[in-house]
Amino acid sequence: MQIDILTLFPEMFSGVLGHSMLQKAVEKSAVTYNVVNFRKYADNKHSQVDDYPYGGGAGMVLMPQPIFAAVADLKEKAACKKPRVILLCPQGTRYDQKKAEELAKEEHLIFICGHYEGYDERIRKHIVTDEISIGDYVLTGGELAAMVVVDSVVRLLPEVLGNAESHIKDSFSTGLLEHPHYTRPADFHGMKVPDVLLSGNHKLIEEWRNKEALRRTLERRPDLLEKIELTPQQKKWLQEVEKEVN
Amino acid sequence: MQIDILTLFPEMFSGVLGHSMLQKAVEKSAVTYNVVNFRKYADNKHSQVDDYPYGGGAGMVLMPQPIFAAVADLKEKAACKKPRVILLCPQGTRYDQKKAEELAKEEHLIFICGHYEGYDERIRKHIVTDEISIGDYVLTGGELAAMVVVDSVVRLLPEVLGNAESHIKDSFSTGLLEHPHYTRPADFHGMKVPDVLLSGNHKLIEEWRNKEALRRTLERRPDLLEKIELTPQQKKWLQEVEKEVN
Repeated sequence: MQIDILTLFPEMFSGVLGHSMLQKAVEKSAVTYNVVNFRKYADNKHSQVDDYPYGGGAGMVLMPQPIFAAVADLKEKAACKKPRVILLCPQGTRYDQKKAEELAKEEHLIFICGHYEGYDERIRKHIVTDEISIGDYVLTGGELAAMVVVDSVVRLLPEVLGNAESHIKDSFSTGLLEHPHYTRPADFHGMKVPDVLLSGNHKLIEEWRNKEALRRTLERRPDLLEKIELTPQQKKWLQEVEKEVN
Repeated sequence: MQIDILTLFPEMFSGVLGHSMLQKAVEKSAVTYNVVNFRKYADNKHSQVDDYPYGGGAGMVLMPQPIFAAVADLKEKAACKKPRVILLCPQGTRYDQKKAEELAKEEHLIFICGHYEGYDERIRKHIVTDEISIGDYVLTGGELAAMVVVDSVVRLLPEVLGNAESHIKDSFSTGLLEHPHYTRPADFHGMKVPDVLLSGNHKLIEEWRNKEALRRTLERRPDLLEKIELTPQQKKWLQEVEKEVN
């Protein structure tokens, strides 16, 4: 997968793209990152990339020209001629795991990150294929949002995650929140691990984990329960949990 | 504000904390960052921080001891004895702008970032004050989520944002998505700026912007309209927009 990132702050990305899973994905040839300062595409004398908004008001707006030129150049250089061009902005579709899985199937992603400024509407209308918001909060720029999307997508690429990591039953992949985890020591200053986990009885442990995942989801994110199809056994466990809560 | 971040990957943070608004906030003495590798708090010979889960299964679980020791040490060193201790995890409360505003009033935030691993439940139960999820997607670790929360909180601290940036009517702060923005040129390869924005008629421009913000919110995030109290004028505009849509 080719990932191009257009930003005015390329130095923000080195720490994140250069370590941990995102770096290992490069070593495994699963992905190539190309962080580009789109200021170099500005065709005016002072390499200006933003300007005052038509109609007045404070704040600056990213001009269409540098972004259009950058995206055209990246498309021309790429083997894949149909990249997804992703704008990170609060007005976008709420990002979720389903969208991550969809993007993970693509060959080429181009991210456009604004910073402080708004985007000229013609960028949205004419070159962007996906407007994405990672959540209902205000960030200084699209850079962190791009890193979040890149991380969630790259970890889904085949061969990127080793066994140890991918075997964890991720929240959202199963549709339920994860059950509680415990590790050593069994007694930490009087705070104890539940007996069932020390019992060695795998059937009981599996049942406890399933019920606790249902309990946690019921308590914290009941909306998730409406989105998935529970098995008959899960429905029975959920009823038991609901009784215990009441 | 004092911000401590506990992580096994401290080098991930330099690019983000060392640039742009987050760096300027340090220069303005609004915030101090302290990124700590909690491995140094492990009291075992090999500085081990995770271990196999009780009850079996793949994946590793962060042990309570190093995190308990790190948080105790950071509390002791801090002037404020009541820090918010924030765990980044998919099981947490969904993060939003209201939570950002709440955290921006605190003196001391401690972030705990896991990576691949799960957290021993005793960490959640006994030292964490807030479990936060930045969205319904799976990330490799809590580091990016911590950066997102830090960015959204620090920009709200008094004196951090200058006039130019803070005057932008942020999405979510007004409860509506932003209206479209346009800047020069008025005609970019045949793609034109709406006439009203070039008219110089401030009343019409204000009305257009208000209606377009309502239109965008109606089209993309109708759920937001249910959460806010519209003025009588906004209700009238919304009705007009709804008629145009149908």
